[in-house]
Amino acid sequence: MKKGWFITFEGPDGSGKTTVSTQVVQRLRQDGYDAVYTREPGGIEIAEQIRQVILDPANTAMDVRTEALLYAASRRQHWVEKIEPALREGKIVLCDRFVDSSLAYQGVGRGIGIQQVLAINEFAIEGHFPDKTLFLDVTAELGLSRIRQRQNKDRLDQEKLDFHQRVCEGYRQVYALFAERMIRIDASRDVEEVIDECCHRIREMVG
Amino acid sequence: MKKGWFITFEGPDGSGKTTVSTQVVQRLRQDGYDAVYTREPGGIEIAEQIRQVILDPANTAMDVRTEALLYAASRRQHWVEKIEPALREGKIVLCDRFVDSSLAYQGVGRGIGIQQVLAINEFAIEGHFPDKTLFLDVTAELGLSRIRQRQNKDRLDQEKLDFHQRVCEGYRQVYALFAERMIRIDASRDVEEVIDECCHRIREMVG
Repeated sequence: MKKGWFITFEGPDGSGKTTVSTQVVQRLRQDGYDAVYTREPGGIEIAEQIRQVILDPANTAMDVRTEALLYAASRRQHWVEKIEPALREGKIVLCDRFVDSSLAYQGVGRGIGIQQVLAINEFAIEGHFPDKTLFLDVTAELGLSRIRQRQNKDRLDQEKLDFHQRVCEGYRQVYALFAERMIRIDASRDVEEVIDECCHRIREMVG
Repeated sequence: MKKGWFITFEGPDGSGKTTVSTQVVQRLRQDGYDAVYTREPGGIEIAEQIRQVILDPANTAMDVRTEALLYAASRRQHWVEKIEPALREGKIVLCDRFVDSSLAYQGVGRGIGIQQVLAINEFAIEGHFPDKTLFLDVTAELGLSRIRQRQNKDRLDQEKLDFHQRVCEGYRQVYALFAERMIRIDASRDVEEVIDECCHRIREMVG
């Protein structure tokens, strides 16, 4: 049975992840690859409903573990309805954020712990880790300066700055755990260079 | 620091669990105990929103693991916002269904496996298992005959019958795992006898 390739893009805010991954999928298609771009909730109705609960600004009382369980639930449904069927058809699935985001954001950023968040995500994905993960690594400082440009803001409050620092540190811990699966990409460079390297790495992999 | 008592009621459909637990809380209050009755989502806004996603009849595509994660998320929020604060105030909290329901219904009934469903629920409750669980045990046949009376239906489809059988078997497996925490109550008897025994067991416990 032919099987596709499951490749995820990961990195902290300001790593250029979304710009890079959407450009990479276009390049791969131009080269004739059957590539799909997705990110949760990915147009999946149940995952959209879950995301609305997570993002509802009225839900200020939401506990960090509730949030982590909801992300895992949304991920599960997105996997079942979108990623897994595409892989079965032999496609290259490029997914913008997956399990590693929860490990870095909820596990380290929110302080739940990587192993605990990993446990509920292993339940959600039933062992289906990505074939490869492109980890766009930037320093916390560079990430921040890009967020500031994007948001047209001079100041982020101290809580957000601290959280961003923890997430960057979290990604390094996740990379240390999964160094075989993850390819570290220096994302401090010009975006075109980063896109080139990602395309090169993916072509190497899928042949 | 004074701490209350956390007592759950468990059992398959038709075990009389809801009738019994609501009556028990009234008796305890008449006897002067500071007792709270609750069941998920328990009026907790975030838990209600999650429950709506689970129960939306349009969500026929919902995967069984997504469902299990959503129940765990709802449980977490209900715990944080309602049960834990009441216990801290020294109350007796009587909760109609908790973790064991997920183990029996999702773990065995839906076939995910008890240990897997236990893992995500341990994440949700952070080790806060009930002090005691009153397990209202009935045979699958008696449970079914009560469901039929309640629903005014002569027939349940075969899928529902099979599911009910698996849930009853699931509860026996859960009881075998947690025999120290769970008190098995013969719920095939007249409901007044069952209520009497539950009240007696709780008074023994809380003094």
